[in-house]
Amino acid sequence: VEACLERCLPPENRRPERLHAAMRYAVLGGGKRVRPLLVYLTGEALGIPTARLDGPSVAVELIHDDLRRGRPTCHRAFDDATAILAGDALQVLAFQLLATDEAMVADFRKRIAIVEELATASGTAGMAGGQAIDLWAQGRSMDIETLETMHRLKTGALIRASVLMGAWSADDLPEGTIGALAAFGDAIGLAFQIQDDILDVEGETNTLGKTAGSDRARDKPNYPSVAGMEAAKRRAGDLCDAAIASLSGMGPGADPLREMARFIVARPY
Amino acid sequence: VEACLERCLPPENRRPERLHAAMRYAVLGGGKRVRPLLVYLTGEALGIPTARLDGPSVAVELIHDDLRRGRPTCHRAFDDATAILAGDALQVLAFQLLATDEAMVADFRKRIAIVEELATASGTAGMAGGQAIDLWAQGRSMDIETLETMHRLKTGALIRASVLMGAWSADDLPEGTIGALAAFGDAIGLAFQIQDDILDVEGETNTLGKTAGSDRARDKPNYPSVAGMEAAKRRAGDLCDAAIASLSGMGPGADPLREMARFIVARPY
Repeated sequence: VEACLERCLPPENRRPERLHAAMRYAVLGGGKRVRPLLVYLTGEALGIPTARLDGPSVAVELIHDDLRRGRPTCHRAFDDATAILAGDALQVLAFQLLATDEAMVADFRKRIAIVEELATASGTAGMAGGQAIDLWAQGRSMDIETLETMHRLKTGALIRASVLMGAWSADDLPEGTIGALAAFGDAIGLAFQIQDDILDVEGETNTLGKTAGSDRARDKPNYPSVAGMEAAKRRAGDLCDAAIASLSGMGPGADPLREMARFIVARPY
Repeated sequence: VEACLERCLPPENRRPERLHAAMRYAVLGGGKRVRPLLVYLTGEALGIPTARLDGPSVAVELIHDDLRRGRPTCHRAFDDATAILAGDALQVLAFQLLATDEAMVADFRKRIAIVEELATASGTAGMAGGQAIDLWAQGRSMDIETLETMHRLKTGALIRASVLMGAWSADDLPEGTIGALAAFGDAIGLAFQIQDDILDVEGETNTLGKTAGSDRARDKPNYPSVAGMEAAKRRAGDLCDAAIASLSGMGPGADPLREMARFIVARPY
């Protein structure tokens, strides 16, 4: 993933240098790379050649919420205007890549489906919408339903899209595969953010890469604060089980996806 | 164009309301709509049904540099975080639309070409790159070559893309058409920004919709300040002629495009 990102990002010595530097700073050398990994694991489950997955894998990682990173954000390392431009430029680079990468799936209808998954998951019905609810939520109380909606949009949508972008890269899709993988992606997407919330309360600052308790410090509702810690852990476990159950029609090739679902709710960081 | 934009933007009474309101504020009720118009005029020159052009026309208008508008920018009317999110969300809405609009050209290869034009023209080799040079330029002197590069990227690239997105919507493209229209779009794109610079120096504040002399006030190089007013007007006129010459192989159906080239360098606002 790092090598693909490195190759796809414009070099720092090409004009406009500062913008390219900010883009590289925002993307390289950080992040868990869960979403690219999901693209590859889904591809593996469907027998897709790895090179065909590089484009979708890089594209989904170019879109991210830089406010939540552990290292100083791009806004502080550069300046506001450059950071905003870098975010815009990374986002369109993702779509440019999906339109031009020759190693991707040959069927243009499927390429368009991949563009649609990424765009929908990044916009107001996805990440941007979730971030907007997140902004609105600061200093407010929230019921569990609204909190789950926020989590599904802000984090879940791009996790689900990663799985589906992998799936649309297949030449042939057995009937029911898209539905099964969409259900899988939905479940692990929400589970991922609930586990993030749990770690925000319980995790150690240095393992986590961001400051533990940061939600509480910013007076933001999270899953344990709204539903209680026990309920949060139960919900994450149930979602992991549901994710695995949704893959019941898929063979042992999907075992790494099942493993990933378990990792997502067991990870210590 | 207004009706299509209105229909494609998420309603203000749907959650997240504030984000949707900011998106609508940024796009509706303002702008010269030159880029959507170019999509339609190119389509007209190629005999393409109007409905097929609505998607590309809206998509290109959703991507814009909100810092240059005459009315208070989205940043001031809402808040920084919401304005940044709205810009991101508008950008991905453009790609979502290109992926999902059923009235668009049926050939998915051409849809991907349209996605590529928009993405390339919006990124570091287009608008975002031009804006980065613009940021760098404040308080510096600039040679005419760098200034033209900045103008071609910041404004020209999306004008060129508008023409080509219209062209790719055709079922059949006579040989040489894409090349001719690309040359046309290049020339009018640069001419448009040179005329903007001329109007910035000469125009009346109330006709212009932004403050005349605003480049000088911000100590930013523009075409008349770098090359002189006479050279600026000559360059704009030459580019208009070159644009019209590049359409020599196209019949009277392209007359509205030729008219548009003349308007771009003659417009008083």
